[in-house]
Amino acid sequence: MTDILFAQDVDVKLVRHSASDADVANAARVSTLGDQVLEWSKAFDGQVEDVEHPGQARNRGLINFLMRDRHGSPFEHNSMTFFVQAPIFVAREFMRHRVGWSYNEESGRYKELRPLFYLPGEDRNLVQVGKPGAYRFEPGTDEQRVNVEHSLSVIYRAAYSHYQQLLSQGVAREVARMLLPVGLFTTFYATCNARSLMHFLSLRTINENATVPSFPQREIELVADRMEELWAERMPLTHAAFNANGRVAP
Amino acid sequence: MTDILFAQDVDVKLVRHSASDADVANAARVSTLGDQVLEWSKAFDGQVEDVEHPGQARNRGLINFLMRDRHGSPFEHNSMTFFVQAPIFVAREFMRHRVGWSYNEESGRYKELRPLFYLPGEDRNLVQVGKPGAYRFEPGTDEQRVNVEHSLSVIYRAAYSHYQQLLSQGVAREVARMLLPVGLFTTFYATCNARSLMHFLSLRTINENATVPSFPQREIELVADRMEELWAERMPLTHAAFNANGRVAP
Amino acid sequence: MTDILFAQDVDVKLVRHSASDADVANAARVSTLGDQVLEWSKAFDGQVEDVEHPGQARNRGLINFLMRDRHGSPFEHNSMTFFVQAPIFVAREFMRHRVGWSYNEESGRYKELRPLFYLPGEDRNLVQVGKPGAYRFEPGTDEQRVNVEHSLSVIYRAAYSHYQQLLSQGVAREVARMLLPVGLFTTFYATCNARSLMHFLSLRTINENATVPSFPQREIELVADRMEELWAERMPLTHAAFNANGRVAP
Amino acid sequence: MTDILFAQDVDVKLVRHSASDADVANAARVSTLGDQVLEWSKAFDGQVEDVEHPGQARNRGLINFLMRDRHGSPFEHNSMTFFVQAPIFVAREFMRHRVGWSYNEESGRYKELRPLFYLPGEDRNLVQVGKPGAYRFEPGTDEQRVNVEHSLSVIYRAAYSHYQQLLSQGVAREVARMLLPVGLFTTFYATCNARSLMHFLSLRTINENATVPSFPQREIELVADRMEELWAERMPLTHAAFNANGRVAP
Repeated sequence: MTDILFAQDVDVKLVRHSASDADVANAARVSTLGDQVLEWSKAFDGQVEDVEHPGQARNRGLINFLMRDRHGSPFEHNSMTFFVQAPIFVAREFMRHRVGWSYNEESGRYKELRPLFYLPGEDRNLVQVGKPGAYRFEPGTDEQRVNVEHSLSVIYRAAYSHYQQLLSQGVAREVARMLLPVGLFTTFYATCNARSLMHFLSLRTINENATVPSFPQREIELVADRMEELWAERMPLTHAAFNANGRVAP
Repeated sequence: MTDILFAQDVDVKLVRHSASDADVANAARVSTLGDQVLEWSKAFDGQVEDVEHPGQARNRGLINFLMRDRHGSPFEHNSMTFFVQAPIFVAREFMRHRVGWSYNEESGRYKELRPLFYLPGEDRNLVQVGKPGAYRFEPGTDEQRVNVEHSLSVIYRAAYSHYQQLLSQGVAREVARMLLPVGLFTTFYATCNARSLMHFLSLRTINENATVPSFPQREIELVADRMEELWAERMPLTHAAFNANGRVAP
Repeated sequence: MTDILFAQDVDVKLVRHSASDADVANAARVSTLGDQVLEWSKAFDGQVEDVEHPGQARNRGLINFLMRDRHGSPFEHNSMTFFVQAPIFVAREFMRHRVGWSYNEESGRYKELRPLFYLPGEDRNLVQVGKPGAYRFEPGTDEQRVNVEHSLSVIYRAAYSHYQQLLSQGVAREVARMLLPVGLFTTFYATCNARSLMHFLSLRTINENATVPSFPQREIELVADRMEELWAERMPLTHAAFNANGRVAP
Repeated sequence: MTDILFAQDVDVKLVRHSASDADVANAARVSTLGDQVLEWSKAFDGQVEDVEHPGQARNRGLINFLMRDRHGSPFEHNSMTFFVQAPIFVAREFMRHRVGWSYNEESGRYKELRPLFYLPGEDRNLVQVGKPGAYRFEPGTDEQRVNVEHSLSVIYRAAYSHYQQLLSQGVAREVARMLLPVGLFTTFYATCNARSLMHFLSLRTINENATVPSFPQREIELVADRMEELWAERMPLTHAAFNANGRVAP
């Protein structure tokens, strides 16, 4: 009998990228003129040119202007592909993002799914309080924590055991998998650009800079936070402008 | 304890629609001229005008021409909203269709999910044979059928029972649902137009008129077949042209 | 020789629609539960049920909630097709809207284009002042107005005359039209839903309720204003919620 | 007075790219299993491993399989940004491609447009023959060629002269440009992935390998041919599979 594995965390990697702040500035410059861009950046930053990074200050002003006034298209001429390992219920919510996103997910029809299941970690709040539209989460009691771990692991084990038994009896993978819980991990590629990523982040992260409140489920928030870190390294000026302008996708 | 319900079928309803063959013809006529349209339809059908349904023959020829030469945009100026009740694994595959589709699905975060689970019916083949990329399905033995029903129903019952117990212990719905299997039914609204629907049907139905083979899972095929019937009633000329031209979305 | 026609206005008609506030509420109700919806609406409006229009108050509260918290998808399950007659430079800007929009435009390759050209009306400001990123428009002098009308009409006439001459000499329409100005009127069908329309309106109208400033060219603003009127008649609660929440598309 | 420039050709550059055949194979492998991929490639190519380029033969077989059976999503995890200089009438047709495309175009509102206009070259057929839906093009007579060049250049010159005069009189750029012909060159960034590019190429090129006929205007065909060359260098296996499978986008 196969060992069941449990994980309390998601996995996110940036497997391919072609994304820089200069891509945004270059795209914006096509639609206007170099001199205008210079005026914009001066008007916004009032900064003299950074001697070591010529163009940096100019780009910062321009990107800030684009973000503030919701000129979204210059943020689309770049590309990032993320590898994500997360529970099925996270993938379900993730793939509702249609515009500016491409996906490839492992298939339960073509391969035998691995016995890796999600269990909430210690810092995962288990209890929902408040009214519809304004829920808050609280840690929950030790008893609740024990009950969750018990129920999830019991069902995960039993389900995977039945899954394997059906496979061994010659039943098709796509039929046997019907009994597998949405807490099972899946893996997928997700490709986006800075604009579509910002839209995703505005809905799937919790951040004090946000002008519009969002209420993401904790597990997709974990994924989103990792993606944001990886993105911020590649496009620091764009990321800063996103934060400075209320974390609303332009 | 709540009774568990099993269903062997999906449910599809057309809840809102504004879709007719005339919508296609009208949109095409904006981009050209009435006289040209007339010539096209003659060239295609060689038909005299239907006296009782003036415009019918002309529309048929025009729609056929558009389908054959892959002029897709005239097929987008119409709209249908379907209500679908199907297992989660079907919804997962369905919502991978991004372009020309809008969705609203019931949420396991905001409501307690109902105990309705999918069991394969008598005519659902259970065994997959052949090579990757060219699978076929066969009925399977009586023993396999009994085993599938046994395993699925055992896990469904146990999972839902644990789900309810966790809820009664005050655990948040979004946590408790992690153990629910993908065979649970969900409900959603799906809005599309004739073009996006044809693309969906080309991938999710099996039909002898199709020039490109497709290998849909049986359960999404059930949904697709119902949608096709409902659509064909509203847009019979478009449906006929789809079949006559290899069931490839224009 | 063909007479040249000038027009100072655009034309917008709603040629097909299936769009009501109830469509939004119904879609939202799929994803939650009737009782929750009721609680939401109470929490938002604090209103007792309207006796003559049962459901109205409930829908208003729900739609307001969805708009405020940016739940955009329920606004997509409806459809409107507009017929638009506007100058080419307006169509160019309009069709940059990709998501949730479908188009069919008359073709200069397949038909002879009509001699209808745009001239700015009396209330169209002609002079741009201020800095990049913060332009304002002013009426301009009588002399400027005369010069604009003179130059536009001279070129429009000469261009259309050459266009017809080339056609009469057997030159292909798609070649002869190269010399036609972008002030020529074109016609197109544009199909959208309430969500994609709100996004368009947020960028192409000027309105004191808007939290994000927009700087549309006057001529596309004319089109947008007509569309907004036609839409507001069909979906008054959604339109009111759009205005009440800063005219930002959810 | 500014000199008017004429050009008989378009300009296309690949300014940013992150696109390789391996991207396609990697994305496909997420959704299946390494071993299955190997079987697929054997089944398709029957090839032994290329010793110098390990993985090449395997990728070729896999990519061919994906293309043939219309598994489109693995072709989306890559990105190319093209700079295009082409007449406005080409940009108009180009930007009708919505899905998987991002654009930034120079703006006639924010900058003074340059006096660069398109004239058909010697090899550009000028005369359209045949019936609607099945047009062919023929070279045209010398007289027709002279007439085209005469009419276009006369209007181009007069229009640009009036444009500059209006600007010098203080009229806003967005008003003055109304008289500029669609033969004026514009520049834009266009970002796509292999899948959206293939869809574009299937409609905008003429190629004997194509199973579906297309009738692109010559000038957009020039752009498409350049893009195809630049793409084929980066993704030779994908390009070969596109040709081998009827040039239909998967």
